[in-house]
Amino acid sequence: MLHSAHCALMSMTSSGVLVVAGTHGNEVNAPWLLQQWRANPVLIDAAGLPVQKVIGNPEAFRRRRRYIDRDLNRCFLPDLVECETSGLEFQRARELLRLHGADGENPCAVVIDLHSTTAAMGNSLVVYGRRPADLAFAALVQGALGLPIYLHEADPEQTGFLVESWPCGLVIEVGPVPQGVLNARIVEQTRLGLQMCLRSLEHALQGEARLPDALVVHRHLGSRDLPKSDNGEPQALIHPELQGRDWHDIDPAQAMFRAADGSDRGEEWVAGEIPVFLNEAAYAEKSIAFSLTRREVWPVEVTWLQALQQLIRAA
Amino acid sequence: MLHSAHCALMSMTSSGVLVVAGTHGNEVNAPWLLQQWRANPVLIDAAGLPVQKVIGNPEAFRRRRRYIDRDLNRCFLPDLVECETSGLEFQRARELLRLHGADGENPCAVVIDLHSTTAAMGNSLVVYGRRPADLAFAALVQGALGLPIYLHEADPEQTGFLVESWPCGLVIEVGPVPQGVLNARIVEQTRLGLQMCLRSLEHALQGEARLPDALVVHRHLGSRDLPKSDNGEPQALIHPELQGRDWHDIDPAQAMFRAADGSDRGEEWVAGEIPVFLNEAAYAEKSIAFSLTRREVWPVEVTWLQALQQLIRAA
Repeated sequence: MLHSAHCALMSMTSSGVLVVAGTHGNEVNAPWLLQQWRANPVLIDAAGLPVQKVIGNPEAFRRRRRYIDRDLNRCFLPDLVECETSGLEFQRARELLRLHGADGENPCAVVIDLHSTTAAMGNSLVVYGRRPADLAFAALVQGALGLPIYLHEADPEQTGFLVESWPCGLVIEVGPVPQGVLNARIVEQTRLGLQMCLRSLEHALQGEARLPDALVVHRHLGSRDLPKSDNGEPQALIHPELQGRDWHDIDPAQAMFRAADGSDRGEEWVAGEIPVFLNEAAYAEKSIAFSLTRREVWPVEVTWLQALQQLIRAA
Repeated sequence: MLHSAHCALMSMTSSGVLVVAGTHGNEVNAPWLLQQWRANPVLIDAAGLPVQKVIGNPEAFRRRRRYIDRDLNRCFLPDLVECETSGLEFQRARELLRLHGADGENPCAVVIDLHSTTAAMGNSLVVYGRRPADLAFAALVQGALGLPIYLHEADPEQTGFLVESWPCGLVIEVGPVPQGVLNARIVEQTRLGLQMCLRSLEHALQGEARLPDALVVHRHLGSRDLPKSDNGEPQALIHPELQGRDWHDIDPAQAMFRAADGSDRGEEWVAGEIPVFLNEAAYAEKSIAFSLTRREVWPVEVTWLQALQQLIRAA
């Protein structure tokens, strides 16, 4: 971008774009990407947008642990700012909002939260709820790169996600990669996803964005745990023929689980239900072996883009 | 096995076979297999051998961490018993020897130590040094299942491995699997490897063992770290075309590393050097991105089997 165009763009918005890596301290690829980006500013084309880059949970990242006291990505609860909930992550959540929230010291209207997973999710987006600006943002990125979208909503057991505390936000979720492992392919997928997010925002800001006709989402239906004994020990594991088949249509005859003796376990598969986050390491403690979704094709509404533009153009 | 044959076999040896899972507390598949085996004794055919099953590092396993103070699998140093080295793992190493060592309360002449790795090692064996009984044991299992063998020796930076403190011992190393993730395929590979180890020992004990003509080993040459900046940050990652190619012949033109901007880095590949443990999560802190080996075919010596038989037949 030419210097003059860059300046013109900067003056159109006083609000930044927040890019968060290491919200979970053992998801190490995005923090490495941000560090490399700092050292080499042309690594990712920010499309002239004022980007703020932060490590979500620096202490957990330093110790290569998902979190210290509590999952930071479940701490962004509606009453977060008022309540004096204790613990490192609640404190960090408040700090992130104070520094980079929509009304913070360095205000950001949009957040992009970079995650990785041990599940074979490929390069994908997670959207929380149905805020029009989020749907426009996701539709623009999906229209450009074809990334699948996991629409997470209406699960009272899973709340307090970071992006919900900003007016607009997406998660980029890339896998499979073990926790604590740097992987060049995962880094490159994250880089491409992030760059397209920034380009899409710039297109929206400039009035050049063209939404696709339809948005394909995988809408969250619920989650399944492994079969457990009375004392909570797994009695069977995700079936080897199911492992790695995130986003795939599953034959209803496919067993969910397999016991150590090779026998199949678990309920019947419901036709049309599509698994995601199969065997994400961190979800074991949340009693989630995988989640189930339904693939839906939504007509894109023109008001979505207007909502996104309104947000990012607001002075 | 018939009851009478079983009893006859038991009386041939007073020494047990020690099976250790969870030497690293975040390698969760083998501990689960042992737990399932306890609940269902026919899950693994112990071939009539008196097997002692233990969790190597119970406290680390409870916390799903590799270790608490220090890697338990580097604590079995020659002067371990004499020196009053402190820390949970040194204490546990002494305890394991006191309880299950060759001269322990429940003496075991042979140990099988079950590990998993984030590297694509498949189902494999690790042998430490060239003790004849170890080589016979490994040759019998390789002859039956064809598993590749990583022969680790002569690396002054990597010492104190558990199996070295028993008269005979092998590591079964299975991957790829993320730390903390239960995977049915990894469990089954571990089960098959362990069962063949036990069957091989029984064949040796009964005088029915037939060694193959040759033992194929991948002999440890050394290790490579990622290119690092002065402050220790990685400047490039394992090349995506190298990732997952453990045990494979590598084209000398193949780059070792790739930087975030897509450029290749690292020295020339030496023809004939074969990588193993590519991107094992736990080796990052040991500054090991992967290790290099040379494939060698050794004629099997008849004295190896005699050494193994002498050990397991000793009263």
